[in-house]
Amino acid sequence: MSRVLLTGASGFVGRCTLPALVRAGHEVHALARRSGPALDGVVWHEADLLAGCGVVAEVEPELLVHLAWYAEHGRFWSSPENVRWVECSLALLRAFVTAGGRRAVMAGSCAEYEWSAQLYPEDAPLRPATLYGAAKHGLHVVAAALCERAGVELAWGRLFFLYGPHEQPGRFVPSLVLALLRGDHSLSETKFTSVVQAMNLRPAHAEEIREAFGADAGQAVAALAASSLTGAVNVASGEGLALADLGRRIAALTGRPELLRIGALPQREHDPPSLVANAARIRTVLARWPPTPLEDGLRETVAWWRGRVEGEHQSVGAQPERDS
Amino acid sequence: MSRVLLTGASGFVGRCTLPALVRAGHEVHALARRSGPALDGVVWHEADLLAGCGVVAEVEPELLVHLAWYAEHGRFWSSPENVRWVECSLALLRAFVTAGGRRAVMAGSCAEYEWSAQLYPEDAPLRPATLYGAAKHGLHVVAAALCERAGVELAWGRLFFLYGPHEQPGRFVPSLVLALLRGDHSLSETKFTSVVQAMNLRPAHAEEIREAFGADAGQAVAALAASSLTGAVNVASGEGLALADLGRRIAALTGRPELLRIGALPQREHDPPSLVANAARIRTVLARWPPTPLEDGLRETVAWWRGRVEGEHQSVGAQPERDS
Repeated sequence: MSRVLLTGASGFVGRCTLPALVRAGHEVHALARRSGPALDGVVWHEADLLAGCGVVAEVEPELLVHLAWYAEHGRFWSSPENVRWVECSLALLRAFVTAGGRRAVMAGSCAEYEWSAQLYPEDAPLRPATLYGAAKHGLHVVAAALCERAGVELAWGRLFFLYGPHEQPGRFVPSLVLALLRGDHSLSETKFTSVVQAMNLRPAHAEEIREAFGADAGQAVAALAASSLTGAVNVASGEGLALADLGRRIAALTGRPELLRIGALPQREHDPPSLVANAARIRTVLARWPPTPLEDGLRETVAWWRGRVEGEHQSVGAQPERDS
Repeated sequence: MSRVLLTGASGFVGRCTLPALVRAGHEVHALARRSGPALDGVVWHEADLLAGCGVVAEVEPELLVHLAWYAEHGRFWSSPENVRWVECSLALLRAFVTAGGRRAVMAGSCAEYEWSAQLYPEDAPLRPATLYGAAKHGLHVVAAALCERAGVELAWGRLFFLYGPHEQPGRFVPSLVLALLRGDHSLSETKFTSVVQAMNLRPAHAEEIREAFGADAGQAVAALAASSLTGAVNVASGEGLALADLGRRIAALTGRPELLRIGALPQREHDPPSLVANAARIRTVLARWPPTPLEDGLRETVAWWRGRVEGEHQSVGAQPERDS
């Protein structure tokens, strides 16, 4: 059992890492701008890392799991906020070293790789095409050298494409789920068309292969924290499927497969034909493998979004004046 | 003519870059913790970049030449101060982008390369063996992506081994010059032996090939600022010589060649057999090439140190009480 400081504890990955760290028996200090729900074995700390990291000296953690980052959908790929997060992540790591920290796990990204391969082992060429990917890669270069010099272990978890409850609504899986679910309800014809049209897949989706890693990501991060692995470690399932197939499965689970149309959206920059991790390293530290079957993970995710959409409608029904 | 902000203006490279920028006709704003000597066309700003970079919004520079860094001899290779300088350099660059900057020149290092080659073009493999080298390389990765995104030109000047007046006394050239010059004076036998012994060369010095780039480095940085070159650019002569030969030239210039003994010091970690730049890129922007002949540069350097040593002795003679 160690004293762990988890940053980004309210975020998409953080909130599924939190219970996994508690289950592993750690004393967990959760850092977020706003506290999340109370949980046995968790002490919440409200702080903005961009404003300083005094919490590190206060907690004196043995383990640091640093997931906090700028993640606004559609903007995070190219925002200068990425650079501010490099700066504050380095300040955080220096504070952790000074406070006597022993081991750190930090969140990298598949966006660090040169997106030209089919399969990505951790030693694949690194040539980020985006400011986000460059910020993560540059941070890793400096963080690894600092940790080596300070005698602190560093595992650099390169997160691939994840899905699950609480994902940002604009991203691939939730936006598709939401559009299909909302198509079930009594929207006006115009609104219905625009929502569903936005969710049409691009022509290339039929061939574009992606990782799809669900709530297991939190368990993988917690397992990485408990292990002695160092260096870069892909946090991924190691299994890919075509985005169009992912879309078909989601459409089937929402009960509206006829709404899915493939081929209406233009191709985007930087989208590689295939992005699947070699997951051999992370598999060595996970108790359970293979991870949750995609079908189960998607079913849970669709159910979670269905709850939100039904909540929206109940709320609209109950208080029509407020929404008109 | 552009408005230039030069950081590290009082440093070893900064002080020879400053007059070169003035000669090029720029409006020069020189930043340092303490102002240097008054110079026509230069506005000094006293500030510590680690404490903030408000000066950027004040000056609104079109050009940024960022040379400031932690440089304490013997400690800079591995100090965590390198990480603080990554953080403040990124904050500086963000401020420059926000203030409407057009072009930046930043100081990288030959320590970014994997030291296994004989000759280093800019696309040689990057695998820094030190925290200093990793900090510079990681900074470059993030800075390049930020500048590309912001439409700001970035030239990344990889400085090789330099020498000249004002170099830190503990480094190779000045320590050798000083030991040989002090050997001329009336030191006690014990002090004489220890000073000269410290300056014995390592056995490998007979084969270790190094760059030796003098005051031309400042002109090279200024030329880089005025050019439109982007990406990594070696700031170097492109010519190497064995350290033992460099030592012999210095010993001859001090008039005490008999004091030089080769073979007494142990080999150090990380010292590569050869470290010579491919200087083809920087040559394209320099008006004068080849640079100042080594013999002339060393003569000037030895003369400068001789002035300092004679100053020491005059001062000792004038006020013997204060030094006893």
